[in-house]
Amino acid sequence: MNYKMMGRFNALFLGVEALFMIPAFIISFSLGELESAKTFLISIGIIMLISGILAVVSKNAKKGFYAKEGLVCVGTSWIFMSIFGCLPFVLSGAIPNYIDALFEIVSGFTTTGASIISDLDPVPKGIIYWRSFSHWLGGMGVLVFLLAIIPGGQSEGYTMHLLRAESPGPDVGKLVPKMRQTAIVLYVSYIVLSLLNLGFLLIGKMDFFEAVCTMFGTAGTGGFGIKNDSLASYSPYIQNVTTVFMLLFGVNFSCYYLLILRQFKSVFKDEELRLYVGTVVASILLISINVFSLFGNAADSIRHSAFQVASVITTTGYSTVDFNEWHSFSKAILMILMVFGACAGSTGGGLKCARVLLLAKNLIRNVGQILRPQKVKVIKVNGKSVDEKVLVNTNAYFFVYIAIIALSTLLLSLDGFSMMTNFSASIACFNNIGPGFEAVGPVSNFSEYSAFSKIVLIFDMLAGRLEIFPVLVLFSPKAWRR
Amino acid sequence: MNYKMMGRFNALFLGVEALFMIPAFIISFSLGELESAKTFLISIGIIMLISGILAVVSKNAKKGFYAKEGLVCVGTSWIFMSIFGCLPFVLSGAIPNYIDALFEIVSGFTTTGASIISDLDPVPKGIIYWRSFSHWLGGMGVLVFLLAIIPGGQSEGYTMHLLRAESPGPDVGKLVPKMRQTAIVLYVSYIVLSLLNLGFLLIGKMDFFEAVCTMFGTAGTGGFGIKNDSLASYSPYIQNVTTVFMLLFGVNFSCYYLLILRQFKSVFKDEELRLYVGTVVASILLISINVFSLFGNAADSIRHSAFQVASVITTTGYSTVDFNEWHSFSKAILMILMVFGACAGSTGGGLKCARVLLLAKNLIRNVGQILRPQKVKVIKVNGKSVDEKVLVNTNAYFFVYIAIIALSTLLLSLDGFSMMTNFSASIACFNNIGPGFEAVGPVSNFSEYSAFSKIVLIFDMLAGRLEIFPVLVLFSPKAWRR
Repeated sequence: MNYKMMGRFNALFLGVEALFMIPAFIISFSLGELESAKTFLISIGIIMLISGILAVVSKNAKKGFYAKEGLVCVGTSWIFMSIFGCLPFVLSGAIPNYIDALFEIVSGFTTTGASIISDLDPVPKGIIYWRSFSHWLGGMGVLVFLLAIIPGGQSEGYTMHLLRAESPGPDVGKLVPKMRQTAIVLYVSYIVLSLLNLGFLLIGKMDFFEAVCTMFGTAGTGGFGIKNDSLASYSPYIQNVTTVFMLLFGVNFSCYYLLILRQFKSVFKDEELRLYVGTVVASILLISINVFSLFGNAADSIRHSAFQVASVITTTGYSTVDFNEWHSFSKAILMILMVFGACAGSTGGGLKCARVLLLAKNLIRNVGQILRPQKVKVIKVNGKSVDEKVLVNTNAYFFVYIAIIALSTLLLSLDGFSMMTNFSASIACFNNIGPGFEAVGPVSNFSEYSAFSKIVLIFDMLAGRLEIFPVLVLFSPKAWRR
Repeated sequence: MNYKMMGRFNALFLGVEALFMIPAFIISFSLGELESAKTFLISIGIIMLISGILAVVSKNAKKGFYAKEGLVCVGTSWIFMSIFGCLPFVLSGAIPNYIDALFEIVSGFTTTGASIISDLDPVPKGIIYWRSFSHWLGGMGVLVFLLAIIPGGQSEGYTMHLLRAESPGPDVGKLVPKMRQTAIVLYVSYIVLSLLNLGFLLIGKMDFFEAVCTMFGTAGTGGFGIKNDSLASYSPYIQNVTTVFMLLFGVNFSCYYLLILRQFKSVFKDEELRLYVGTVVASILLISINVFSLFGNAADSIRHSAFQVASVITTTGYSTVDFNEWHSFSKAILMILMVFGACAGSTGGGLKCARVLLLAKNLIRNVGQILRPQKVKVIKVNGKSVDEKVLVNTNAYFFVYIAIIALSTLLLSLDGFSMMTNFSASIACFNNIGPGFEAVGPVSNFSEYSAFSKIVLIFDMLAGRLEIFPVLVLFSPKAWRR
């Protein structure tokens, strides 16, 4: 382990965090929330101090950066960022308990949106802003931001190892030959789409502050609401705009790059996109029919079905109704969508459509080989052969994915809630969705869980966002060897 | 597809079924249950007739038997055996509805033990005998029986393909060089252990008929009870004997063969056995502590914990208490054990400890390779290298395993029961356990589900017992091509 390199990297990460806390300070100050403003100032100071110490201690870091370092750096930096990112919550008294505050900020950065705040009304606006902004920052990843702003000339291998560790999906590729340009393309697309989302919300006469925060939650596929009933009290227009943008942010961003390059055919033929769109359409259709009796008309049934489907498959977690009250069939579909997740290379979480596609193709090949053992077949996605290593990796990922859900359900059940509560809480946090079913449903929250269970869920959220391995290797002694 | 070969094979299978129905006829007749005796006689006649027709139609079958034929033959023969095996239930009026009767016999042959009979008291003893005996027959598999009695000289490849399709576990090996001798060793061990079990039950002064039926359910890891409260009203001695024998029948039978050969060290060092024993001991310990407050003393806590753990991990499904009333933590452990399942090469179902071991080793290797990409490592079990093909196969198996649970939960939820009911019903049937949680818990049964749901569960039970692929390939048009 190259410890100095790790220190330098963490110093940089914390610096970015302090930088992004400044707007929260300005907002608090300009709204006259002087208490909050003070806590942001103190937090920024503490974070800058730690960042500075780390930078001084770790100067003269030797080059030498491998996959191992990439994973450990990304894993630790998300943990550090969370440990200090929740300071404003604690210092302002909005969330006095530190574990609760940590839960809330990890939920923010990992774009989960699971909350322990029972009543949002008394929370200062500056705090609400920082809470929602954490979704936007976590959505595209701090790393992509860093790569986009740091001048080029750095070793490509170095950045590639890092990006692999933070980016979602079974196989991370570059859009353009240079890593830095890839990062710029990604971030610019992200900003443009976010601004478009904001514009459409403002057209619907949404309050500016609420529109910005809602956009943060949508773009990052996070799900922290500004109101206690999430998006239930907004107009159908606002809800529909949010449905569309949740779905757009669940698409692999490389598709947008291909659209800019006018390669419409590649986008249209993208197998992952087709699976994603097909799943969304089929789910909306089935749920609309199933919940028709609850709403009594097709328009409401479709609107609420579409919103909930988009919210769950993109792992956002907003809601317009308490889907916990829906029929079992609709709930079972939502549960499957929770696991499915969005596309790889999007801001969404879950297993990812790309992995489901690979696992399904691997299964079909396997059945084919049982029938015709002598035939050797290569798996192709979008016409390109998939490396067998990616398949092995995806299979191992799927096993540890299921194992983590099982294990955390077991640990959560020490608190005595119902089995479905614990099971859906694990799935909802691990897949970075937010609400689950029963006692953690859309109208409830996670505050009732014990501190131990909250730590388990914090682990789940981080493991889910970073796709398990960067968090898992932190437990391996091998990773810490010099 | 070699259709004539398939016909011959099915004729043989049905012949065996008719043969094994004769004792049920004799028992009914000697107990004076003349109605039942008549239905058994009619059923035997019908089965013999179909078997005869199949044999005549498919004479002069060409040799030419590949993996494909093995899978299809085994898949279809289990379906045929069930279609006709439930005739006594329907004809005697014990289960008038045909789908219900089919559900019951599939549950029997697949050693699931999920029942649709709400009250066993009015059911004739001959019918109870046939119902319980189906567990014993299905446990070791009809095929192993056939291989053991059919004279040798047949192509080894032919029998190997068949045995692979019916036997549980990721990697089927031969104990001894000759296939037929392997089958004989397996069946003799099965009979000896069954008789031992019966002896111990009789020592506990259990009624002879009840002891035989209980032994059938234990040996086949089935779980059909003779009383409405399963084993709750029997003495602690009977319950403890059953605990021990359930666990013994969950062990890979090759271990018993090694014991006969006095290779104690190999048995002691067997990694799957160690995982199995370790899991059982840890689960009993954790549940005993967790349920202590319900029983108030250590002896009862341990006895009931051990019984339920043994029943669930071996996928038997007997119960001495309504574990649905236990704390969430204990229920979560039982749920994980349901998936774990017994050892490969035993009569139990589930994912199998051997697969869990392979999947875990594959994961550890994968994490190691992320840390040190240049190092190539071969996975070993019991000191022997595991073929990469077995790993690929196991991974594909795991994916389709989870996918089937998800899909059948979705289909079951059309009936409107709670999510945990549907989820646990899928898991309980697919892993051939029997009882699940909530509305399908140990004191309930599956009779409330619709006919459609029962067909889904019939598929699950067959797919679980035959380890998915023999049932899955029946849906592939390629399998039916000449």
